[in-house]
Amino acid sequence: MIFSSALIENAVNEFARLPGVGKKTALRLVLHLLKQDTAQVELFSETVARMRRQIKFCKHCHNVSDDETCSICANPARHTNVVCVVESIRDVIAIENTQQFNGVYHVLGGIISPIDGIGPEQLNIHSLVERVQQQGVEEVIMALSPTIEGDTTIYYLSKKLKEWPVKITTIARGIAFGGELEYADEMTLARSLTNRLPLENYLQQGSR
Amino acid sequence: MIFSSALIENAVNEFARLPGVGKKTALRLVLHLLKQDTAQVELFSETVARMRRQIKFCKHCHNVSDDETCSICANPARHTNVVCVVESIRDVIAIENTQQFNGVYHVLGGIISPIDGIGPEQLNIHSLVERVQQQGVEEVIMALSPTIEGDTTIYYLSKKLKEWPVKITTIARGIAFGGELEYADEMTLARSLTNRLPLENYLQQGSR
Ligand SMILES: [Zn+2]
Ligand SMILES: [Zn+2]
Repeated sequence: MIFSSALIENAVNEFARLPGVGKKTALRLVLHLLKQDTAQVELFSETVARMRRQIKFCKHCHNVSDDETCSICANPARHTNVVCVVESIRDVIAIENTQQFNGVYHVLGGIISPIDGIGPEQLNIHSLVERVQQQGVEEVIMALSPTIEGDTTIYYLSKKLKEWPVKITTIARGIAFGGELEYADEMTLARSLTNRLPLENYLQQGSR
Repeated sequence: MIFSSALIENAVNEFARLPGVGKKTALRLVLHLLKQDTAQVELFSETVARMRRQIKFCKHCHNVSDDETCSICANPARHTNVVCVVESIRDVIAIENTQQFNGVYHVLGGIISPIDGIGPEQLNIHSLVERVQQQGVEEVIMALSPTIEGDTTIYYLSKKLKEWPVKITTIARGIAFGGELEYADEMTLARSLTNRLPLENYLQQGSR
C-alpha cells in the first residue's frame, strides 16, 4: 500500500501487526481514529500503554492483576480451598463470565506440549504443588481443554499431587473433545464446571 | 464481560470502541499485547497518538499530510494542471495504489447528501473553484462513487466550474453503479481512470 503520509503509514503498520488485522482493516481503524478528537485518541493510546506497563501477575494464582494479589484471590467471599487449574488468563475470564465458580484459580501459563517444546518446567506447576501442600486446598479442578495436551497435563499434575490428600476433579465433558475451552459458550462451560467429575471417572471414560 | 483487572477491562473497552471490533476481538488484541514487550506496546501506543496529534491537512488539496503541503502536491513530478476530485482520503489511497495517476487531488471531505444533511457548504468546494480560477487547472477528473449522491455532487461541481475553461471528465464506469469507489479492485480503478470520459458523455449515458 502506498501512503502519502508517514504518520498514517506508521500507524497502519502498527495496527497491522495485531493478530487477525490485515492492512485494509488497519487502514480503516486508522482513518476512524483520525476522525476522533485528539483527546479521545490519546486516551486510547494511554490506556493501552498503561495496561502493558502496569499489569502485574498475581503472586498466588498467576492471573493478571492490578496489584500483587489479584482481585479474585483478594476477595474474602471466594473459597480458597477450591482451586481451578486453567491454561491461560483467557480461561479465567471465560469461567468468571459464567458466574458459577466461587473458588480461586491457578493459571499454568500454558499446557504440556512436547511438539511445541513446552515441558512441565515452563509452566506454573511448582507453585501449584506448593499451594496444595501448604494452604489446605481440598479440591483441585482441572479445567483444561479436552485435547491430547490437556489430558497429558492433567495426568502429569495428578501424579505430582497424588501424595497429598486433595480431591482432583475435571470439568465435565460438555465441551467436545478437541475443542478449545475459551470458545465454549457460557452455558456449556458453566454446566461442565457444575458437573465436574472425580479424576478416576474421567480416566475411565476412556478419553486417552 | 467480567474482568478481574481494571487495567485489562479499560484496554478492552477502548479497543471495542473501534469500528468492527467487538468485545471478544478486543480481548484477543489486549491479550496479544500483554504478551509483547513493554517497549513494543509503547511503540504501538505512541505511533497511534503521534499520528492523531501531528497529522495535518494539505492546504492545497485537503489530503492528510505530515506537513503544510502533502507529499503529492509537493512532488514536482506530479502534474498540477490535472486535479482528481475525490470524496475522502481513503479514495486518494485507493487511486495512489493503482500507480496510474500523475496529477494531483482535491479531497471534498464528503459528498452532497441532503438525507444526511450534507450540503455543498460543508464540503471543500470553494477551494476547488479557487484552484481552477487561479492555478491554471486544465482538467478536473470527477472520481466520485457512482451513486445518486456522487452524481448530484458531480452535477453541482460542473455548474460551479462551467464559466472556467476547464475540461471536466469523470472516471469510466468500470465500477458498478451504486458501488463504493474504495472497494473497487486496483485494476478496475486504474482502468476506469485511464478511460475517463468528458462529462457530456457521462450525462448522455443516462445514469441519472
Ligand atoms: Zn490471584
Ligand atoms: Zn496536497
